[in-house]
Amino acid sequence: MRATLLDAPRQVSLADVPDPAVQAPTDAVVRVVASCICGSDLWPYRGVAERPPGIRIGHEFVGVVEEVGADVGSVAPGDFVVAPFVWSDGTCVHCRAGFQTSCLHGGGWGSPDREGLLVDGGQGERVRVPQADGTLVPTPEPPDPALVPALLALSDVMGTGHHAALAAGVREGSTVVVVGDGAVGLCGVLASSRLGAERVVLMSRHAPRQDLGRRFGATDVVAERGDEGVERVLELTGGVGADAVLECVGTSQSMEQAVRSARPGATVGYVGVPYGEAPLRAMFGANVGLRGGVAPVRRYLPELLEDVLAGQLDPGPVFDLELPLDRVADGYAAMDERRAVKVLLRP
Amino acid sequence: MRATLLDAPRQVSLADVPDPAVQAPTDAVVRVVASCICGSDLWPYRGVAERPPGIRIGHEFVGVVEEVGADVGSVAPGDFVVAPFVWSDGTCVHCRAGFQTSCLHGGGWGSPDREGLLVDGGQGERVRVPQADGTLVPTPEPPDPALVPALLALSDVMGTGHHAALAAGVREGSTVVVVGDGAVGLCGVLASSRLGAERVVLMSRHAPRQDLGRRFGATDVVAERGDEGVERVLELTGGVGADAVLECVGTSQSMEQAVRSARPGATVGYVGVPYGEAPLRAMFGANVGLRGGVAPVRRYLPELLEDVLAGQLDPGPVFDLELPLDRVADGYAAMDERRAVKVLLRP
Repeated sequence: MRATLLDAPRQVSLADVPDPAVQAPTDAVVRVVASCICGSDLWPYRGVAERPPGIRIGHEFVGVVEEVGADVGSVAPGDFVVAPFVWSDGTCVHCRAGFQTSCLHGGGWGSPDREGLLVDGGQGERVRVPQADGTLVPTPEPPDPALVPALLALSDVMGTGHHAALAAGVREGSTVVVVGDGAVGLCGVLASSRLGAERVVLMSRHAPRQDLGRRFGATDVVAERGDEGVERVLELTGGVGADAVLECVGTSQSMEQAVRSARPGATVGYVGVPYGEAPLRAMFGANVGLRGGVAPVRRYLPELLEDVLAGQLDPGPVFDLELPLDRVADGYAAMDERRAVKVLLRP
Repeated sequence: MRATLLDAPRQVSLADVPDPAVQAPTDAVVRVVASCICGSDLWPYRGVAERPPGIRIGHEFVGVVEEVGADVGSVAPGDFVVAPFVWSDGTCVHCRAGFQTSCLHGGGWGSPDREGLLVDGGQGERVRVPQADGTLVPTPEPPDPALVPALLALSDVMGTGHHAALAAGVREGSTVVVVGDGAVGLCGVLASSRLGAERVVLMSRHAPRQDLGRRFGATDVVAERGDEGVERVLELTGGVGADAVLECVGTSQSMEQAVRSARPGATVGYVGVPYGEAPLRAMFGANVGLRGGVAPVRRYLPELLEDVLAGQLDPGPVFDLELPLDRVADGYAAMDERRAVKVLLRP
């Protein structure tokens, strides 16, 4: 089969690799129907996060189960499934507490599993899925192909935006500020709106992203940054600050923007992989909390899936560029240069 | 009257200063019955936090109201009162939300008020209290003198330990780790125990503090630090980590100790003024939140005061050295050299 490799910083290729097969009784093999490129894939792509050359890449996919091991009970060949961006057993103490991202027997796509056997990356034609019962979530019946983008968004960005909103304590009537207008930030807007936020302020300087933000429920857009951005947020909130802030970038600047936009006692829900520092003194003085991290998407999948299938939730529009898998390199370049919010790939 | 001045790093003196008087209709003047030295006073004492020479110091006191302005309604001359470690109007948007430490018209002891008039520090004979209605909490009747240490502890350390425990989400049955065996950490043990924690692990290497911790409800004491400390906590928690962690120091090391002691998804309640950094990557990976800050002690005072007066709560033993006010310099030296946990001063 063909799969995407990260050969070196800013060099991805589609290469022929061995076909995956069931190797443990808890495995499944999934034929990928659609996968995508994540903002967090750009860190290794840009060389900011170091990776061994030739590593498999991609951690978001939906597809159809082709084969299952003897111990797999929750999915069967032919099932359409959504995969969260990590795999997990669903039974360990951390999975049971809803933090499948800390699964004692789980791991990430594109790396060896606990037995040292490669687990395929998502940006390929097929994936061996370890711990299939704990990991995959099937749809009750084959979904309308038009829903594929929305379902694919559940594998990471929508669940991550939802995690940020829950971590920040968004609820009915909240005033929310979302820092970051990437796919996750935009899904954070959608999630906040879905949770009943009355006012959702998106910090964004990019017209197409502002428009999508408004479509997802943003009531206000603030293009200013730094001191001016904070001033605008304070103006919009009667000098008080936001009840909840979603930080969806991960730099020191965005973190500071988030903390200074929060009202005293509020929480910043952060889901941008942190490549910066938290402004601890400002947080301490105003009792602004910081909560979040790598989103336990698996926990949220059943609930969000139900809404998508019922036509009540559509994060699909975060994909503004669709390419065949053999143009994966163009997809990375488009996201790297911010020409695309998020790229969907079809094998 | 006499009041404590910080003349230079490691130099405090008791000096003659003007007697305070009511200057605004919302003021009260309180005769100090007891005050104390705070761990956070050691930062300016040591020169780590810079202060102008000769500044007044001290932010914890209990006393008797001597005089009130025309607009003061909640306290009257003769009332015994507890002062929280900042003053606040009790009516602004942040006070109403329970974050009196962010009061729009409040401030700290020992600094000028919004009109530029000096507000006395707590380590003196008398204090002009701005916004007396919003700030002071009276006891229903003159308290038993034996309760003075416990009541004084409510002005900061007990409320701060309680804040850490609430921020960390301590509840009935929790397994809690407390990092820091100073007065606040010890009060954090007491607060956790009061909130129903089943297991309270105090990280401490000092026998007298370990003993006091046990008296306050610690079920386990861990003397190890760093990797070994984390390993001990994991052993004690079946490899899972603590449900809630209280960080009561403020250094990078203590913050890391706290984060690594927490189970995935748990929250570190931090109340040590941060002089270090937060280990964001570790927090992110395990979804460990950070919440807390400067404690809104005023919010907690009525509830904690009731428990002290009912004989159900006694944080008084955190004071292990009592000195007359004119030996305040000895008190600072004793705390600086860790010969005393917390020093009570009697004018």
